[in-house]
Amino acid sequence: MKVLAVTLIWLSLFTSVASQAQTSAAKAPTSSSIKIARSDCLHSNKGSAQYFTGSVQVQQLFPAYDPSLTSGGKVTFEAGARSAWHTHPFGQILIVPEGTGWIQQWGGPIEEIRKGDVIWIPAGVKHWHGATPNSAMTHIAIQEELNGKVVEWMEKVTDEQYRK
Amino acid sequence: MKVLAVTLIWLSLFTSVASQAQTSAAKAPTSSSIKIARSDCLHSNKGSAQYFTGSVQVQQLFPAYDPSLTSGGKVTFEAGARSAWHTHPFGQILIVPEGTGWIQQWGGPIEEIRKGDVIWIPAGVKHWHGATPNSAMTHIAIQEELNGKVVEWMEKVTDEQYRK
Repeated sequence: MKVLAVTLIWLSLFTSVASQAQTSAAKAPTSSSIKIARSDCLHSNKGSAQYFTGSVQVQQLFPAYDPSLTSGGKVTFEAGARSAWHTHPFGQILIVPEGTGWIQQWGGPIEEIRKGDVIWIPAGVKHWHGATPNSAMTHIAIQEELNGKVVEWMEKVTDEQYRK
Repeated sequence: MKVLAVTLIWLSLFTSVASQAQTSAAKAPTSSSIKIARSDCLHSNKGSAQYFTGSVQVQQLFPAYDPSLTSGGKVTFEAGARSAWHTHPFGQILIVPEGTGWIQQWGGPIEEIRKGDVIWIPAGVKHWHGATPNSAMTHIAIQEELNGKVVEWMEKVTDEQYRK
């Protein structure tokens, strides 16, 4: 069943690629050449106040290149900054290259995450992540999309929830 | 068609998870809890001489957690070390956190990759990557699996090909 589904998704993705070639492509275009994105061309944006509290920088590292559904970005949270509560349709991996932060699953304790740790957030699990009150934290975030979406944003993390 | 296939793959993966619970699981088990892999628990292994030339360390960062098909690892090539020629069924992303290396697509020039660069290798493109003769290089490698496979290994990169 799984092999059949993987075959089907491949067929459908190639159909999608073929049709996108004739219309506007929502995803990164396909190519048969290796693409090198140089570090000085990877732009950072301030994290939206709608989804983040405090000072947050978001840098897209790579889009989902067809037929892949996986994209990745680097997010830096200054001390005290954090995401809003949210879920991911296919889950998310966080790799922490710098700093010390916090992560919390709805109903669970706040847990510390540190440089070198790798975190798996299962599909549909409500959670937030960010810096600690006294230290910045950077993570690389990797996730697969479902129907073009990689995240479902919810309410912001209150100061009371964050300090608890 | 793509939406249908994504739905089908989700259904099939959940069926697969249910059946794996009764047999041996080939993939990482599912869970509804966030999982933190601490840096000192992420073990490194020497890269196999069958697939690599020179001194290479391979560290698995994360397996493909159901229903995700994406796994990642960190690979460190000492100066002069490189992979064999190979392809990936869904392509591969490389993120370079340290050093300077080389990458080459079959029939193309050797290109330098440096700290901070992000590289996309399209599905099915024959290539190799590694250190330069005089500098080590570390990359994080992220790829999706197809029928349980993430790579198709080919012949090794000769000294003549590497030095050219």
